Order: sequence, then structure tokens, then C-alpha cells
Amino acid sequence: MKYFEDIVLKNPRFSPRAHTVTAEEIKRFAAEWDPMPFHLDEEIAKLSPIGKLFASSAHTVAIGLRLSHDMMEKDIAVIAGLGWNDLKFPKPVCAGDSLRLKSQIVEKRESQSKPDRGIIISLNELYNQNDELVAEYKIVTLMFKNPH
Amino acid sequence: MKYFEDIVLKNPRFSPRAHTVTAEEIKRFAAEWDPMPFHLDEEIAKLSPIGKLFASSAHTVAIGLRLSHDMMEKDIAVIAGLGWNDLKFPKPVCAGDSLRLKSQIVEKRESQSKPDRGIIISLNELYNQNDELVAEYKIVTLMFKNPH
Repeated sequence: MKYFEDIVLKNPRFSPRAHTVTAEEIKRFAAEWDPMPFHLDEEIAKLSPIGKLFASSAHTVAIGLRLSHDMMEKDIAVIAGLGWNDLKFPKPVCAGDSLRLKSQIVEKRESQSKPDRGIIISLNELYNQNDELVAEYKIVTLMFKNPH
Repeated sequence: MKYFEDIVLKNPRFSPRAHTVTAEEIKRFAAEWDPMPFHLDEEIAKLSPIGKLFASSAHTVAIGLRLSHDMMEKDIAVIAGLGWNDLKFPKPVCAGDSLRLKSQIVEKRESQSKPDRGIIISLNELYNQNDELVAEYKIVTLMFKNPH
């Protein structure tokens, strides 16, 4: 099991695979969770400032989360996500884009209230196939310390 | 069409309906986007500090986004989401929970770089059926100003 004490700071890694976004996935996610016309209909999206179908921000974050699982140790003593911060979406994610995640732990601290726990903050950056940054965000996660 | 100029600050509203979360939905969302064992399997979740199956943070945010659509004017001059800030998840969202969204615009400012656009910041709070706050977050959105 990997505990709070085992977390190494500022050791950026890339996801081993990329996630290629399809128009079908953009529309399916948006239809269920974020039904803006420009996430659902190519013709309407053409008239928007982006000029073509693009993914919901929530969809983009979900893709980053999915890619992070490929980089995650199976036996990591995570308790729960506490929060997310500073999410930015500098470029749209469009059908055909292929996203890779760069992730690193940028901060760790012991819990003030629970001596068996610690808090880690990861910086996550999603890049498309042209190495353009399309999303960045920090995730705050509660972990167990090593009980031994 | 509702433009940047028409946005009223600090006028909180509740979503007209609640979204009831099912175990099936928790597992389906997690299986695609956030396959942590405690989002997928009741027995594993029982052994976690939460003690029962609970939803992915990303799923919770997606529910908030979905509920916000019921409160949104159809003809609102939104261009795109620019970012999210200060997401906190003070309580877990579990199967059977019924979530309502409280939303208000807390800040608006003109774009510095594009004179035809403005930026609004909404504060979104999700409450469960016991009026406990389960999530809060701010969304930064780019809008068109009234061209007339």
C-alpha cells in the first residue's frame, strides 16, 4: 500500500495513453450532463465563436480523471477527494482531439484534525495532439498515513 | 436574448427539481470516468471511511451542471466556460440522496481584451435532502454584451 509518506513531490509524469475524443462522446456526455446546444449540434456549434463542436468543461475534466487512473498505483491509501481548484480551460476540446494528462503532486501536508491522515495537492494538465494546453486544475485529496 | 448587461448579482435561486442519485448512476459514471473501487462496489465502500457507496466528485459536479440547465434561460448569450474555482465537497453524495442546486451570480466584469464580451462568476451550492451542503464551486463564464 502506498501511503501519504510515500508521495514524492514535483515528479511530473504523463499518462501512458491518450484519450481520443469523438463527436459521439461529446454529444453523449453533454446530453446527460451539460446540454448546451453547441455541445450537441455541429451546425449550431459552427455559428458559435469556437466554430465547431467542442466538449463540455465537465467532460474534459472527466477525461483527465480517467487518464489519471492509468497513472495511479492500484494500492494507494486514498480516502476521498476534498476539493478542486484553479480549473482553467485555455483552449476548446474538439472531436478528434487526442488528450494526454501530465500530473504531479505539488504540495503535501499533514491533516490538522486527524493525525492518521494527510492531504496532497496534484497539478493536472491536459494537452492535445498539438501539445496545446487545453485544461489545467489542482485536486486536493485526503490520504491515510502509514499506520505502522 | 439575455446578455451580460442583463445579469443580476446576488439573486440566489433554487433548481426547480431535485436530482435523485441511484447506485446504478454512481457506478455507471465511475466505471467510465473515475473507477475507484469505493465508487463501484458496495462491499468495498463499506470498508472505506465513508462506509457506503458514494459518488465521484466529478459526478457530483455533473449533477450540479445538469440542474443548472433547468434554471438557465434558453436564450442566454454564453460563449464558453473559462474556469471553475474553489470546489469543495464537504459531505459525500450517496445512493438515494436527492440534490438541489442553489445558484447565484456573485461577480461580473467586462472583458479587458474583447470589448464585446463580459465575464460572470456564479456560486453554486448543492444541498441534499437533509439540507446539508454536499458541494460548492464557482464557475467563470464568458458572455456576449448586448450588441445593440
